[in-house]
Amino acid sequence: MKSLLVLGAGRSSSALIDYLLEQAPKHNWKVTVGDISEAAARERIGNSPHGKPISFDVKKEGAENVIAAHDLVISVLPAMLHPVVAKFCLKYKKHLLTASYVSQDMNSFHAEATKAGLLFLNECGLDPGIDHMSAMQVMDRIRAEGGDLFSFESFTGGLIAPETDPGNPWRYKFTWNPRNVVMAGQGTAKFLQEGQYKYIPYQQLFKRVTPVDVPGYGKYEGYANRDSLGYRALYGLQGIKTMLRGTLRNEGFCAAWDVLVQLGCTDDSYTMEGVAEMTHRSFLNAFTGYHPTRKLEEKIAKQAGVAVDGPEMAKLRWSGFFDDNPVGLTEGTPAQVLEHILNKRWKLDPQDRDLIVMWHRFRYAKDGHGREVQATLIATGDDAIHTAMAKTVGLPLGIAAKLLLEGKIKARGVVVPVTKEFYDPILAELKKLGVELVEK
Amino acid sequence: MKSLLVLGAGRSSSALIDYLLEQAPKHNWKVTVGDISEAAARERIGNSPHGKPISFDVKKEGAENVIAAHDLVISVLPAMLHPVVAKFCLKYKKHLLTASYVSQDMNSFHAEATKAGLLFLNECGLDPGIDHMSAMQVMDRIRAEGGDLFSFESFTGGLIAPETDPGNPWRYKFTWNPRNVVMAGQGTAKFLQEGQYKYIPYQQLFKRVTPVDVPGYGKYEGYANRDSLGYRALYGLQGIKTMLRGTLRNEGFCAAWDVLVQLGCTDDSYTMEGVAEMTHRSFLNAFTGYHPTRKLEEKIAKQAGVAVDGPEMAKLRWSGFFDDNPVGLTEGTPAQVLEHILNKRWKLDPQDRDLIVMWHRFRYAKDGHGREVQATLIATGDDAIHTAMAKTVGLPLGIAAKLLLEGKIKARGVVVPVTKEFYDPILAELKKLGVELVEK
Repeated sequence: MKSLLVLGAGRSSSALIDYLLEQAPKHNWKVTVGDISEAAARERIGNSPHGKPISFDVKKEGAENVIAAHDLVISVLPAMLHPVVAKFCLKYKKHLLTASYVSQDMNSFHAEATKAGLLFLNECGLDPGIDHMSAMQVMDRIRAEGGDLFSFESFTGGLIAPETDPGNPWRYKFTWNPRNVVMAGQGTAKFLQEGQYKYIPYQQLFKRVTPVDVPGYGKYEGYANRDSLGYRALYGLQGIKTMLRGTLRNEGFCAAWDVLVQLGCTDDSYTMEGVAEMTHRSFLNAFTGYHPTRKLEEKIAKQAGVAVDGPEMAKLRWSGFFDDNPVGLTEGTPAQVLEHILNKRWKLDPQDRDLIVMWHRFRYAKDGHGREVQATLIATGDDAIHTAMAKTVGLPLGIAAKLLLEGKIKARGVVVPVTKEFYDPILAELKKLGVELVEK
Repeated sequence: MKSLLVLGAGRSSSALIDYLLEQAPKHNWKVTVGDISEAAARERIGNSPHGKPISFDVKKEGAENVIAAHDLVISVLPAMLHPVVAKFCLKYKKHLLTASYVSQDMNSFHAEATKAGLLFLNECGLDPGIDHMSAMQVMDRIRAEGGDLFSFESFTGGLIAPETDPGNPWRYKFTWNPRNVVMAGQGTAKFLQEGQYKYIPYQQLFKRVTPVDVPGYGKYEGYANRDSLGYRALYGLQGIKTMLRGTLRNEGFCAAWDVLVQLGCTDDSYTMEGVAEMTHRSFLNAFTGYHPTRKLEEKIAKQAGVAVDGPEMAKLRWSGFFDDNPVGLTEGTPAQVLEHILNKRWKLDPQDRDLIVMWHRFRYAKDGHGREVQATLIATGDDAIHTAMAKTVGLPLGIAAKLLLEGKIKARGVVVPVTKEFYDPILAELKKLGVELVEK
């Protein structure tokens, strides 16, 4: 009997927990799900006899005893809590799996974890996760066949399925942490293009988008992720000329989002005055110059440099930004107010289906010729609980846990799944589960 | 015999030290000037028999003994060092005068300083400083005469005199800490306009400028300072409808500066790659999209939404941004590289004269009528050492020190000079020294 501990029963854990409970009888597992809300943990487990919900708060006394009592820990808690979990895992010699980016803190555990024979696997979800694995599988093959990669571009987006909310002009809803969506892109994007280092500041990010035509799925647009350069060493691409990772949105999204960015609505650095009395309309008005007679719509359009009857303004109108409805918060930063307003229209309805689109393009030289491979992964959710996002984030974690308990993973220390022992079996099982990369 | 200690012999200290040395024999003062560079301190003192240069580093052992040996400390060190100086001043019961904004740390000393009978005077330079004093003098008079203020706008700029560098299309040079100029406005500007709270994020700041016509001096433009709201309580203007403080530039400056802001050149959050091999031209190119044939000038103009042959591009061209000259640094953030390039053309030449322009507009109701007062202060420098900036920052500090030692200042604790005991005598003496506010 092996005991697995899943920490966190939030948005992204449904497919992970379903998978573990389904695998449990075959492998003689016991699965404990811990969350601040025991009720949330119970809901995820349903009536499975293989799962046990518990109340768990990593910051409270007793948390370490829970970790000590299990064989392996999968944390889908907020990333900032992972170092605390990792410390307990080191103390009691437990493996740890997460889908989060490797932080400096997490990285600092590498030597100790290695010495203790522990795997601290991170970035084993969708993005980061499946993107690493699928890209490395293709690139290792290209290299094995004698190809010399000179360009790698990769974009992933969590969108909504075509039949979901057909009147929504953004073609977008919150399928992931809304706060992360509102704050996305703050900082400076860094990448390589044709051998030149390129930097895009936040104020330009949603203007300088890359058109992405996904074979068989249609036209999207991508904005650059914060740091594409850090992945060169990880992927073994030190001499590459173009290296760009980014986020996909439907066409037109970025131009409309940029209006909110330019106004300052995504700012999280200060608390606004008078939020309790604020309406959607007066929220936007706070970011425009005073004018005794000019209408808000005209001021916004002029300030953002868009047409007052154009598609960007139509999206803002659809989201209710020009309505006189109360915001409904008592205090908040611009980003918090914005998230609250957006959530009124962008919250998934129970029957809504989300859509994951991942697209890679590899360009390389072989036998004196330039060649290109594109690879696409599409995943569609079943409903607002069993989302494609939850599947693609959770299943790689669940599969990695299984492989580890079966003794099939030899890597130890703080690790990211970019090697064959991870990507081959994980991608093979994902394919069986309906999540597959298609090459062209 | 009283002993005064001036800490810092940098750019802003020349007029302060000249004033103190000139006053010294009348008042039986001894003036010590401490700087990390003893040579710099010696240069400021020249051959005056009343001054003594010393090597001083507030972070090194022995610093507190220097403070202990004097009666009063004037610190023109970088503002972040003031709390360290303030702690020693508390320990040895010495008054402290600075021209810097009151930080949270400084504010925390208020109760202790008051109890010890010490004055910790801050914001007693130009801006902040003369702006507070001149505004409060006018506003207290308006209020005493029964006026009800509903609007206060105040702009100050450190510019160059009309005859200085006539071919310089920016009408600007570095007359103050260049780094502060490059970083100016990062954050969000907050103010009140016609009873509405208004917020301008950095990406809009240099677009949303206020035209300011200074009576008798010409047309300028102003951008909003970070926090105009915090001054309401200090000025006793809690019910005011419009409250806006800002920075003055010559017309056209902000539109050209905005091109650099939009590109991301003022970012100080990361280190660029390849700075050692960088030219002015390749620096700008790093902030533009890759294009196989399009010229840099065209890319910049398109990205920033300005005409390729327009005045914004002409300013960048004059500054040498399109030249293939090496930058001349081995490493740096965008902001550091930008400052280095700008300094090649914006450094004051020895004979250059700077120009301070301060403009207030007060609007108030009296006897049922709306009324308006504008007040302007102009100061011109003598040369690149004896700048108007150094005079207007340093003289208020010197005068305040004299008044304090004469027993004419009763205020104690952490204080800003917004009361009559400061503004009347300081503004009166400034007027004798040629720095005068003129009302219209």
